[in-house]
Amino acid sequence: MKLNVDKEYIDKLLSGDKRTISRAISVVENEYADKLELLKSVYKHTGKAYKIGITGPPGAGKSTITDCIIKNLTKKNFRIGVIAVDPTSPFTGGALLGDRVRMTDSTMFENVFIRSMATRGSLGGLSKNVNDVCKILDASGKDFIIIETVGVGQSELDIAQTADTTVVALVPESGDSVQAMKAGLMEIADVFALNKSDRQGADEIVTSLKNILHLRIPQDDNYEIKVLKTIAVKNTGIEELIGEIFNHREHLIKSGYLDRKRKEHLANEITEIVNLNLQKSFWDKNNSDVLLQNIDDIYSKKTDPYTFISSLTSGIKL
Amino acid sequence: MKLNVDKEYIDKLLSGDKRTISRAISVVENEYADKLELLKSVYKHTGKAYKIGITGPPGAGKSTITDCIIKNLTKKNFRIGVIAVDPTSPFTGGALLGDRVRMTDSTMFENVFIRSMATRGSLGGLSKNVNDVCKILDASGKDFIIIETVGVGQSELDIAQTADTTVVALVPESGDSVQAMKAGLMEIADVFALNKSDRQGADEIVTSLKNILHLRIPQDDNYEIKVLKTIAVKNTGIEELIGEIFNHREHLIKSGYLDRKRKEHLANEITEIVNLNLQKSFWDKNNSDVLLQNIDDIYSKKTDPYTFISSLTSGIKL
Repeated sequence: MKLNVDKEYIDKLLSGDKRTISRAISVVENEYADKLELLKSVYKHTGKAYKIGITGPPGAGKSTITDCIIKNLTKKNFRIGVIAVDPTSPFTGGALLGDRVRMTDSTMFENVFIRSMATRGSLGGLSKNVNDVCKILDASGKDFIIIETVGVGQSELDIAQTADTTVVALVPESGDSVQAMKAGLMEIADVFALNKSDRQGADEIVTSLKNILHLRIPQDDNYEIKVLKTIAVKNTGIEELIGEIFNHREHLIKSGYLDRKRKEHLANEITEIVNLNLQKSFWDKNNSDVLLQNIDDIYSKKTDPYTFISSLTSGIKL
Repeated sequence: MKLNVDKEYIDKLLSGDKRTISRAISVVENEYADKLELLKSVYKHTGKAYKIGITGPPGAGKSTITDCIIKNLTKKNFRIGVIAVDPTSPFTGGALLGDRVRMTDSTMFENVFIRSMATRGSLGGLSKNVNDVCKILDASGKDFIIIETVGVGQSELDIAQTADTTVVALVPESGDSVQAMKAGLMEIADVFALNKSDRQGADEIVTSLKNILHLRIPQDDNYEIKVLKTIAVKNTGIEELIGEIFNHREHLIKSGYLDRKRKEHLANEITEIVNLNLQKSFWDKNNSDVLLQNIDDIYSKKTDPYTFISSLTSGIKL
């Protein structure tokens, strides 16, 4: 795909034209030739959108919560971008879009733009891609960008952490609060949403989460993390959840922590791009062939990986 | 810590001396000076241990299953190494070892060596570290190495995939089979263990997992993935699970797929080491300072990340 990244094109993107946004996202996602030029032109128009991360274990109802938040915010006349990080399964040959179908209500609104992104086969570049898509949506005039991730692994947590406010969704069934701690969710949550909170055990989990939060090492931003109860399928508790997201945003802005947080994210993003560039340059230059040619000898222990690596990387000047 | 990696030391390691194993693991985990020399000496003694990965969502009872497998295999006179990939929480200042306490029964056996490893703050080097620790345990004469990971994120899946046979543990509560597909578990499982299978909904999940497995794109190794029911706290179904792990191992050996799988893992490991080396060399050379000095200008849009990256990486010769 060849774009003509001129003023007219950028103006169209800034105006929020859906087709232009869609094509721009395809360009950055698929690493088309114009990607760098596009991102450079777009960058100065970013920084206005507020990013909300929604994460939590599979089955916590993240899509439904996202759906409710979209409906609520569009009623308030906000423009919303949504990035749904869906694992693509080579098993079925495509992303499972079952959850996204429920979004149809929301996509009907003029002011919502939803994009699904695959996690599989992204070779560590996923959070870079999410950042790039965020920039497109941000420049296109969205007030809020919701980044919804499936799973509670390190990479999903990293992605959620590119957000300004991170909502961690749990359900009474997702295990006790010790499991949440173990999964690293305590460190990344700015607000907890205990979803499906009409189910058995909800109050116990809320209490135990609150108890654990009291034990928490005080963070320098000194913000008190709330545990809210929601029943997303009934739209219960969503107004309160959004209220708390707004509270957190106000806190970050007033305290100056928003700039600090975003600068940290930016530095991480730059580091990641550089690292990926280093890898790409290295493994493009026939080095992949050299590895392939030597793997039998290494496997059969005629040599060892470390000696092989030394010889492979000896000529590098960084 | 300074090691004297001579023949005497290596012999002691090969003999399975627990203190020597422990120190060797510390050396590779903490990147001490002797690490490379140690790994080089150890490498030719590896390849005998069979690696079993155990993964699945938090709360699936992975530790209990691991515990049962250890007890069962030690009764059969096998020597076992266990790597428990536990998230360290900066929140409490250390790893949550609650689960591991249950291991006390097993650690009493002379032939079991258990090591917990942290996932947080490992900067992408976790699977490299797990591979290194595997090599130490392998060389020390273990027949089986069990790698247990918490979480179902990309990095945890990657770690589980360094194993020869991967067991995915689920519970009736971990959501329906669609959730398991979404989490990418279908692609990595060589056998499913539906744990806590005396709970409601177990049979439905078994049926639906089996149905989905029938839809699966045929893999070139043509192995039929089983769904087994376990109740690990009662030691129910563990013998069958181990039987199936042995079946899978036999299949891999007979078909020649074990060598192929291990060569692939080795190539991935080498790629990862090279990538980490590239990153380390690059970010050591004052480049971190340059990034720090420029981050305000990039954030305030006096320049953009892409122009900055070009100038930062312009002198590189790979």
